Amino acid sequence: MKLITAVVKPHRLDEIKEALQAFGVHGLTVTEASGYGRQRGHTEVYRGAEYTVDLVPKVRIEVLVEDDDAEQLVDVVVKAARTGKIGDGKVWTIPVETAVRVRTGERGPDAL
Amino acid sequence: MKLITAVVKPHRLDEIKEALQAFGVHGLTVTEASGYGRQRGHTEVYRGAEYTVDLVPKVRIEVLVEDDDAEQLVDVVVKAARTGKIGDGKVWTIPVETAVRVRTGERGPDAL
Amino acid sequence: MKLITAVVKPHRLDEIKEALQAFGVHGLTVTEASGYGRQRGHTEVYRGAEYTVDLVPKVRIEVLVEDDDAEQLVDVVVKAARTGKIGDGKVWTIPVETAVRVRTGERGPDAL
Ligand SMILES: Nc1ncnc2c1ncn2[C@@H]1O[C@H](COP(=O)(O)OP(=O)(O)OP(=O)(O)O)[C@@H](O)[C@H]1O
Ligand SMILES: Nc1ncnc2c1ncn2[C@@H]1O[C@H](COP(=O)(O)OP(=O)(O)OP(=O)(O)O)[C@@H](O)[C@H]1O
Ligand SMILES: Nc1ncnc2c1ncn2[C@@H]1O[C@H](COP(=O)(O)OP(=O)(O)OP(=O)(O)O)[C@@H](O)[C@H]1O
Ligand SMILES: [Mg+2]
Ligand SMILES: [Mg+2]
Ligand SMILES: [Mg+2]
Repeated sequence: MKLITAVVKPHRLDEIKEALQAFGVHGLTVTEASGYGRQRGHTEVYRGAEYTVDLVPKVRIEVLVEDDDAEQLVDVVVKAARTGKIGDGKVWTIPVETAVRVRTGERGPDAL
Repeated sequence: MKLITAVVKPHRLDEIKEALQAFGVHGLTVTEASGYGRQRGHTEVYRGAEYTVDLVPKVRIEVLVEDDDAEQLVDVVVKAARTGKIGDGKVWTIPVETAVRVRTGERGPDAL
Repeated sequence: MKLITAVVKPHRLDEIKEALQAFGVHGLTVTEASGYGRQRGHTEVYRGAEYTVDLVPKVRIEVLVEDDDAEQLVDVVVKAARTGKIGDGKVWTIPVETAVRVRTGERGPDAL
């Protein structure tokens, strides 16, 4: 399994949820975060206001997926998150060794 | 070392802390999160209220552990988090390459 | 690539941002967190107040970096985070398989 993490613009969350759902992904975890990328010190627009790029609000989305789906799902998330403007964010994948569904104790891909 | 991440019902946090303590685990990190699993669109009960399962509040717990303890500690966390009702959450493990205790500079298992 | 995660005292964030910037690192993600280490049950001072060490506020910083920079950057973060007092935190690294810059679709080190 893999863990896909996406740090993206908050207003793209619904788009990402729908794109994952359409692909057949059944769960995700969201955390509020903030950050900056390469434009630190310049300005980025968020909700009509200009921010000097120093800890602009983002959402951090985590999705546990099967190995075989990971590459395609990264593309799904990237496409759904994209606005074409600076600050669109980063998506990365990390290897996961064990995953368990707490209620049932199922492990591995069955846990997802 | 491994990083165990658990996304679970907030009211299970104390139970999980006590179970880890009993095992001899000395630290953890908690973040507020929200999410959904397979029942998205159906309802999940949280603090007596029914939520349509779309971003129900969860806590995200991280525990850095030694390799040899990881498997058993996943079971400890799963057991402490379980209520038997939908939405009990997920627990997963990720490989960790380096860990440092900031105050002392100790590395590896000594850093935990 | 690697993901460096640091869970540290909130008032060290600016110091860490400046140290990363000086090294040439262009981005980071911050999440509010809380936690405890080995002193659970004892007291830790935060903003002049003593906390019984049970979920003291921390910041959780994530930095995606190139493999060749990871080891040195861990030292940079550790040094910038250190106050010498208990509760200074932990820094750890995780392997990253894919990273994408959302706006451009660039992958790998070019995405950072
Ligand atoms: N190296 C990094 N490590 C961790 N998080 C990062 C990194 N770079 C960016 N981020 C996160 O992604 C968010 C958006 O970054 P951003 O899209 O501005 O990156 P960028 O490389 O500057 O791309 P762009 O040129 O399209 O703006 C930041 O607010 C931060 O939370
Ligand atoms: N695939 C996933 N990726 C990331 N986080 C997930 C995933 N599935 C679930 N989660 C997180 O775990 C929390 C609880 O999920 P949940 O226990 O409802 O999963 P489930 O598979 O539907 O299990 P159950 O049938 O027992 O409800 C969610 O709110 C979400 O934060
Ligand atoms: N094993 C662990 N797993 C996950 N997070 C941890 C762990 N240990 C500590 N942390 C996180 O790091 C923060 C600071 O921990 P702390 O620096 O007190 O560790 P410590 O080992 O007790 O070191 P010190 O003796 O210098 O206080 C905690 O609040 C928690 O968020
Ligand atoms: Mg940018
Ligand atoms: Mg569910
Ligand atoms: Mg401590």
